[in-house]
Amino acid sequence: MTESRQDYLVVFSPSGRRGRFAEGTPLLEAARSLGVDIDSVCGGRALCGRCQVSVSEGEFPKHGIVSSEDHLSEAGDAEMAYGERRGLSEERRLSCQAKIRGDLAIDVPETSQVHRQVVRKAHEAIELRIDPVVHPYYLEVPLPDMNDPRGDLERLREALKDEWGIETAYWDVRVTQALQGVLREGDWKVTVAIHNDNEIIAVWPGFRDRLYGMAVDVGSTTIAAHLCDMRSGEVVASAGRMNPQIRFGEDLMSRVSYIMLNDGGEHELIRVVREAINALAEELAGTADIAVQDIVEMTVVGNPIMQHLVLGYDPRELGQAPFALASDSAVSVPARDLDIDIHPGGYAFVLPCIAGHVGADMAGVLLAEAPWERDEVSLLVDVGTNAEIVLGNKARLLAASSPTGPAFEGAQISAGQRAAPGAIERVRIDAETLEPKFRVIGSELWSDEPGFQEELPPGGVTGICGSGIIEVVAELYLAGVIDADGRILDRSGDSPRIEANDRTFSYVLSRDVPDIRITQNDVRAIQLAKAALYAGCRLLMDKLGVDRVDRIRLAGAFGAHIDVKYAMVLGMIPDCDLGSVSSAGNAAGTGARIALLNRESRGLIQRQVRGVEKIETAVEERFQQHFVEAMALPHRSDPFKRLRQVVSMPEPPQQTVATRRRRRRQ
Amino acid sequence: MTESRQDYLVVFSPSGRRGRFAEGTPLLEAARSLGVDIDSVCGGRALCGRCQVSVSEGEFPKHGIVSSEDHLSEAGDAEMAYGERRGLSEERRLSCQAKIRGDLAIDVPETSQVHRQVVRKAHEAIELRIDPVVHPYYLEVPLPDMNDPRGDLERLREALKDEWGIETAYWDVRVTQALQGVLREGDWKVTVAIHNDNEIIAVWPGFRDRLYGMAVDVGSTTIAAHLCDMRSGEVVASAGRMNPQIRFGEDLMSRVSYIMLNDGGEHELIRVVREAINALAEELAGTADIAVQDIVEMTVVGNPIMQHLVLGYDPRELGQAPFALASDSAVSVPARDLDIDIHPGGYAFVLPCIAGHVGADMAGVLLAEAPWERDEVSLLVDVGTNAEIVLGNKARLLAASSPTGPAFEGAQISAGQRAAPGAIERVRIDAETLEPKFRVIGSELWSDEPGFQEELPPGGVTGICGSGIIEVVAELYLAGVIDADGRILDRSGDSPRIEANDRTFSYVLSRDVPDIRITQNDVRAIQLAKAALYAGCRLLMDKLGVDRVDRIRLAGAFGAHIDVKYAMVLGMIPDCDLGSVSSAGNAAGTGARIALLNRESRGLIQRQVRGVEKIETAVEERFQQHFVEAMALPHRSDPFKRLRQVVSMPEPPQQTVATRRRRRRQ
Repeated sequence: MTESRQDYLVVFSPSGRRGRFAEGTPLLEAARSLGVDIDSVCGGRALCGRCQVSVSEGEFPKHGIVSSEDHLSEAGDAEMAYGERRGLSEERRLSCQAKIRGDLAIDVPETSQVHRQVVRKAHEAIELRIDPVVHPYYLEVPLPDMNDPRGDLERLREALKDEWGIETAYWDVRVTQALQGVLREGDWKVTVAIHNDNEIIAVWPGFRDRLYGMAVDVGSTTIAAHLCDMRSGEVVASAGRMNPQIRFGEDLMSRVSYIMLNDGGEHELIRVVREAINALAEELAGTADIAVQDIVEMTVVGNPIMQHLVLGYDPRELGQAPFALASDSAVSVPARDLDIDIHPGGYAFVLPCIAGHVGADMAGVLLAEAPWERDEVSLLVDVGTNAEIVLGNKARLLAASSPTGPAFEGAQISAGQRAAPGAIERVRIDAETLEPKFRVIGSELWSDEPGFQEELPPGGVTGICGSGIIEVVAELYLAGVIDADGRILDRSGDSPRIEANDRTFSYVLSRDVPDIRITQNDVRAIQLAKAALYAGCRLLMDKLGVDRVDRIRLAGAFGAHIDVKYAMVLGMIPDCDLGSVSSAGNAAGTGARIALLNRESRGLIQRQVRGVEKIETAVEERFQQHFVEAMALPHRSDPFKRLRQVVSMPEPPQQTVATRRRRRRQ
Repeated sequence: MTESRQDYLVVFSPSGRRGRFAEGTPLLEAARSLGVDIDSVCGGRALCGRCQVSVSEGEFPKHGIVSSEDHLSEAGDAEMAYGERRGLSEERRLSCQAKIRGDLAIDVPETSQVHRQVVRKAHEAIELRIDPVVHPYYLEVPLPDMNDPRGDLERLREALKDEWGIETAYWDVRVTQALQGVLREGDWKVTVAIHNDNEIIAVWPGFRDRLYGMAVDVGSTTIAAHLCDMRSGEVVASAGRMNPQIRFGEDLMSRVSYIMLNDGGEHELIRVVREAINALAEELAGTADIAVQDIVEMTVVGNPIMQHLVLGYDPRELGQAPFALASDSAVSVPARDLDIDIHPGGYAFVLPCIAGHVGADMAGVLLAEAPWERDEVSLLVDVGTNAEIVLGNKARLLAASSPTGPAFEGAQISAGQRAAPGAIERVRIDAETLEPKFRVIGSELWSDEPGFQEELPPGGVTGICGSGIIEVVAELYLAGVIDADGRILDRSGDSPRIEANDRTFSYVLSRDVPDIRITQNDVRAIQLAKAALYAGCRLLMDKLGVDRVDRIRLAGAFGAHIDVKYAMVLGMIPDCDLGSVSSAGNAAGTGARIALLNRESRGLIQRQVRGVEKIETAVEERFQQHFVEAMALPHRSDPFKRLRQVVSMPEPPQQTVATRRRRRRQ
C-alpha cells in the first residue's frame, strides 16, 4: 500500500463550487478541475499574474471548515519574483503557485475571472462580458532534435494541446514564416494569439499578455476609432478624423454619383477610407505607446455605403433602386485583405447591414441597445443623410430607412454647415421682441452674454448646423413667426429681423459676416426632413400595430446634439414621454466595441439582423400618406398635444394666436 | 382521391441501382434519388452536357423489364439546342431532359460519372479517381427586389443551396467585391467555383464548365509545371524552366549559405522562385489559350528547401543541425499569400515534407507510388544533392536521406556539368583497346558513328553529366582500369588514354576541346556518393529487418536517365532482380497532379507522411559502418553477385584479372 496524502476541502467563491483535493495540489489545478473560472495566460508559470486569489479566513459552519492563509504553501521563488516584478498585494496569492495544505475558502476576484462582467457607462444599456475572439497563450516549446523530425510548427501545436488543451485546425502562413526566428529569439518560450479557438494568427517571443483591438465607426463625415485592451475591455485611446472621402462629395449620394461618373472611382474612395483607418490605427498605437502590429483584431460599423467601401464593395447599386446590398452578412476577413495594416494575422469583423439603407451602424446601435431584451417598445433612430429606424421589442423588430435628406446635418440649408467650430448650435428667440440669442460650437457663451465676441472661435460665426436649424425653426414656430404650415409670416412690422424676399419672408438670425438668415426654403427643407423621419417611424408603428412607443433612443451625433424638446416641438418623432426620450450616445461605436470584446455578440447580431423585418418605405403607400400629414408643424393629426408635453416650454404667446387670425383674414 | 400516374422500373448500370419512378420523372432526378453517380454542372439546364446517358434496349429478365428508347420522352428544344451547339451522339440523351415513360435500363458512361477512374501511364502505378478540391456550379440567382432586402451574396448562396444542396460557410471577400458586377453582366446567371465544399472562391458571368489546375514540381535546377483540366484530369499543357535561384548557388547548400551570409537573402530566393512559377503559369495559360486567372488551384512539390522557399519560410535551419523544418504539415494556403497570380481566390496545396532532408518531392513520389498498398517491399529513391529514400510496404514505411552530395548531378566532377545539350550521357569502353564511345545529350549518334561531329549540338561536347559519369566509372571498372578499391590503375602501357598525373592516373574520355578526363578524384567522388546512397538504403533495410528488397523505383531525372545496370555494377543500390528495378518517371510531379485532381489524396499523404518512421542517418553508427563498407566497387559484402545479375553485360575480360595480378605484384 502506498501512503495516501491527506485530502482537504476547498470552497471557491463566488461560484460556490467545492471539492476535496490531495495535499499539495496547486489551487489553480483544483479550480480548473471544478470548472471554476480563473484566468491564466502563462499556463501556471507565475508570469502573467492573472490567476490571483485570496483566502477568506475564518470558520465556515455551512461547509464545516476553518479556512486560514496558513492552509496554503508559502510563496516560493517564482511567486516572490512575480511580486517584485509586477506587485502582488498582501492578501493575494498566485493560484498556480499556492498549494493546498488544509481546508480553504478561496475568493476569486472579478479581475481573475476569464469572463468578467464590465458595467458600462450610463447611456450604455447592457453589461458586457469580456470574451474577445482573440486570446493569448504562453507556451514553452520543446527543442528540435535529430531524432524528432517534426517541424517547429508541429511541436508548437503539440505544446498548445498539451499545455492548454487547444487543438487548432488553422494557422496563418505568416505565423509559420516567422515561427523559427521567433522560437529561437524567445529561447523556445513564446506567446501565441489564437483567433476563435481554431487559428493561430500571431506568435511573439517570450511572454506577452496584453492584446489590443480597435473598434472603428466609419461615418460619412468623421471616422472614429477606439483602441481597447482586449483583456480589461478598457478603451486605452480614442481618435477621430475627417472622412477623406469628403473631397469626392459632402454627402453620401454625391460620392455614389462620383463613382457612377468616374470609371474606377470606387477604388479611390475605397483607398482613402482605408488609409484614414490606417492613420487612425497609427495614431491610437502612438497614443497608447504600442506598435500598430499589437492590434490583433478590429471591428467596423458604418452606414451601408461606408460599410461597402471599407470592404471594397462597389456601392453603386446602393445609389439606385432596388438598392441591392452586395451582402447583408457580417463578415470576418483578414484585415490585410482590406489593406489595413494591423497585425498581419489580424481579422476585421464588419457588422452586417440590415437593408439597403439601414447599415452596419444601426446593427451597432442594436447591439448596444439590445431592444430584443425588452418588453417595452423601443424606437431607435440614427439620423444621417437617411434616417435609419428600428422599432420593436423582444417579440418583433422592424427596420426602415427614411429619406430625410441631409438638412438635419446642415446641408441644403442656405446658411447651413456641418457641426464644426463657428456653427450656431443653440437658438432662443424672445417671443415678444423676436430678438434671438444663440450659441456657437467652440464657445460656452450665449450671444447676449458679455465677452461673446472675444470667445468666438477663429473665423467667428460661420453658419448654422443641424441642431441650430432645428432649434431656430422650432423657436420661430413657438414665437408665431412660422405658422403650422411652415410659412414664414409677414411680421416685418413687428421686427426688423423679418425681411421680405420676393414673395416670401426670411428671418435674420445674425448680422455678422456672413449674415445667417433663415429662409422659407430652409423651413421647407426642415419640414420635408422631419416629415420623412416622422412618417418612417409612424409606418413602422403601423406595421407593429402600436400607437405609442415606450422609449425613444436617438443615436449618433444628431442624437447627442439635438435638444429633444425641439424635436418634439417640430414633430420629428412620435409621441413619447419626454423623460423616455434620450440620446443613445455613440451607440454604433459602442456596438463595434461590444463586437470587439465579446465574441458571442457577433453571432447574436447576425441572427438578430436576419430576424429584423425590413420595410421599404419607397414602396409603401402609407408612408406617402404619413409624410404628407407630417409636413405641418406640429403635424395635423395631433396639433397641440405635443406642445403640452413639452413641460419646460412657455405657453405659446398670445400673438401667435393673433398672427394666425391675421393670416386667416388675409 | 387524386389520379396517380403510373410507376416504371428504372435500372442504372454500372451501379446496378434500381427504383420505381412516376411517369415524367427526369432521369437525372431518378438517378440522384438512388445515389447514382451522374455529373452535372448546369443543374439540369441542358447546358453542360455532363449528364449524358444511353438506353440499353431489349429484354432484361433479371429485372423483369423490357427497355426501349421509346420509354423516354422525345428530345425537346433545350436538348436539341445542346446537340446543335456541342454535339450529342445518336444513342446519347441528356438525363436532365429525358423523362421516364416506361421501364428502362440506363447506362451511365464513364464520362458522365462525377468520380471517374482515369488509368494513367505505364510508369504510374495507381489509378486516379478525378475528384478535385474545386468544383464549378452553374446558378440562376433571383433578382433583387425592393421587398427582399437580402444582399446579392445571400441570394446567390440561397440559390446554391436550393439548386445544388450546397451550404457554404465561407466566401472570399473578393467574390463579394466582384459579385454585383458579375451577376449583372451574366444577367443573373453565373458559375461559381466552390473549394472543398465550403468556400466560394470564384464567380464568373454565365455558364462555364472548365476549370484548370496547375501542378508544380520545384526542383533545385528546374521547375516543371503541368496545367490540368480539372474535369478530365488531362494535362493540357506542360512547361519547364530553369530555377532562377541558380544565380545564388548551383546546389542547395550554396543557396542556404547565401542566405546565411546575406541578411534578408531568403527574400530574394523566395521572390525569384515565385516569379518563375508565375512565369510558368503565364506560359501554360498562353499555350492552352486560357487566362491565367482560369487556374483556380495549384499543388506544389519540392525538396525541403524549395518547399520552404515557395511557402516563404526561411530555410536556414535546414542548413544546420538539427535540421528543423518550419513545418512538416501539408498546407493549403491562398496562392495570393504566396504572391502567385492564379485566380485571386485560388489555393496552393503544398505537399508536406517528411523530414529535414526528405521533402515534399518524396511525398509526391509516395503518392504516385503508393507503397502502402503493396505487400512487397519497395525501395523508392530520389537522388538530388541528397538521396531521399523510402523503404517499406503496407505494414511499415521508413524514410531517410543520405548525403550523396551533388556528384550524381555532375557537380564536383572535374569535367562534370548539369544534364544539358553537349553533356556526355552514355559511355561504352572497349575492354580490349580501352577505346571509348559515347553519346551526348542533343544527339542520337554514338561518337564512333558517321556524322557524329555534324550532329553535335552547338558548342560541341561540353562535359559529362551524372549518368555519363556513372557509366564511365562502371565501364572503366568492367574494363579493369579501375580496381575494386576505386583506384585508376597504371595501364598507360595498354592505352594512350591512361595518363599519369602526379601520383595518380586519369582516363581521357574525349580529346575534343575541352578534354573530358576522368580523374582519380572524380572516381572518389562517385565512390563517396554511391557509398552514401547504398548505406542509406542498407540502413533502412536493417531497420525494417530485410536483406533484400522486392522492387526498386528510381524517381526523378536521375532515375529516368541512369541505366540501372550501371547503378548495379557500381553498387549504388541494394540487391534486387534487375527486372524489378525501374524508373518511376517524374513521380514527384505525378504526385503533385494526384493531389491536384483528387482531394482525398491530400489527407492520405498527410496521414502517410505522419506515419513514416524517420531515420536520421547522421546519428546512426550503422550508417557509418555501411558507408565505409560500400566504398568498394562493387561493395565488399557481395563483390561478384551483382555483376552476374547484370545479364546483358559481357564477362569481365581476362586482362582485368591480369591487371589485378599485376597490381598485386607491384
